[in-house]
Amino acid sequence: MRAMLASASFAPSVGNAQPWRFVRLRSPGIRDALAAHVEEQNAHAAEHYAGQERYEHYQSLKLHGLRDAPELMAVFCDEHPQAGYGLGIATMPEMLRYSCVLAIHNLWLAARLRGIGLGWVSILDPSTVKAMLDVPVHWSLIALLCIGYPVEECDTPELERCGWQPREPWSDRVFER
Amino acid sequence: MRAMLASASFAPSVGNAQPWRFVRLRSPGIRDALAAHVEEQNAHAAEHYAGQERYEHYQSLKLHGLRDAPELMAVFCDEHPQAGYGLGIATMPEMLRYSCVLAIHNLWLAARLRGIGLGWVSILDPSTVKAMLDVPVHWSLIALLCIGYPVEECDTPELERCGWQPREPWSDRVFER
Repeated sequence: MRAMLASASFAPSVGNAQPWRFVRLRSPGIRDALAAHVEEQNAHAAEHYAGQERYEHYQSLKLHGLRDAPELMAVFCDEHPQAGYGLGIATMPEMLRYSCVLAIHNLWLAARLRGIGLGWVSILDPSTVKAMLDVPVHWSLIALLCIGYPVEECDTPELERCGWQPREPWSDRVFER
Repeated sequence: MRAMLASASFAPSVGNAQPWRFVRLRSPGIRDALAAHVEEQNAHAAEHYAGQERYEHYQSLKLHGLRDAPELMAVFCDEHPQAGYGLGIATMPEMLRYSCVLAIHNLWLAARLRGIGLGWVSILDPSTVKAMLDVPVHWSLIALLCIGYPVEECDTPELERCGWQPREPWSDRVFER
């Protein structure tokens, strides 16, 4: 975890502000509360597919590993970092959040190099999760991560394998002006 | 560029929605208009440092390569993709934008592997740039990228080398709950 976090911190960031804040979640009480919250939010999300063929399919998907993953981590963005002195964020403050995503991607790649998997859970209410974790008011939640050794290895994304959404040709997403 | 775009498209995305839209900018008129816009925005941003020691420092920084880079690219997020069928975005629609950032990071790494550099320009007004490029209304601008062979190679970020902002210890950004 230390080596992975060190790799994450080599991500580029706007103004070199390094606005990522990694919170390792080690309390069993927090784990239980997060799992219960995500399961509740997931039940709401499932209703979106009610009456569709996809309803059963959605219900069968594994969308978090909060009860099983050996390591849980929340990643926050400091929306008002001193570092960077405001460079590059006057008109696009979201660059701070995007910098945190770059750090998460570094962490993800550093994990995969070690045979470790990472799942990014987004079926949650960010303000509820933030309140659970008692962090500074100017931090915003970017990600809740489940980290551990995967049950199986596969180069094809799970949502592609199970028929939810295939990968589409990259050239369909490239345009010119 | 084709190989780099193909690598970008292997990024993970929420619901496998692949919401990234890459727009290669090949018109000299667009290049000139973007450079003029960023230079104007940069003059505004510089005012933030007026009266500070950092003012001269800011003015000396190279903050875009829009007039020189052989390849310019805008990256947009489709905020309402059909792909993915809404999975994972009911409570965190920003996951679509974060997925685009993951693709940009893949593109960046694929560029570096080839000795190519990438600069992410954020000193701009996203709605102005979007209007210049005549893209669908439900696309939002994530990044304007300058791509080309760097003048020099260095493992230390430029803002660190020039004394704007040093890298800080990664452990200062790790917490526990």
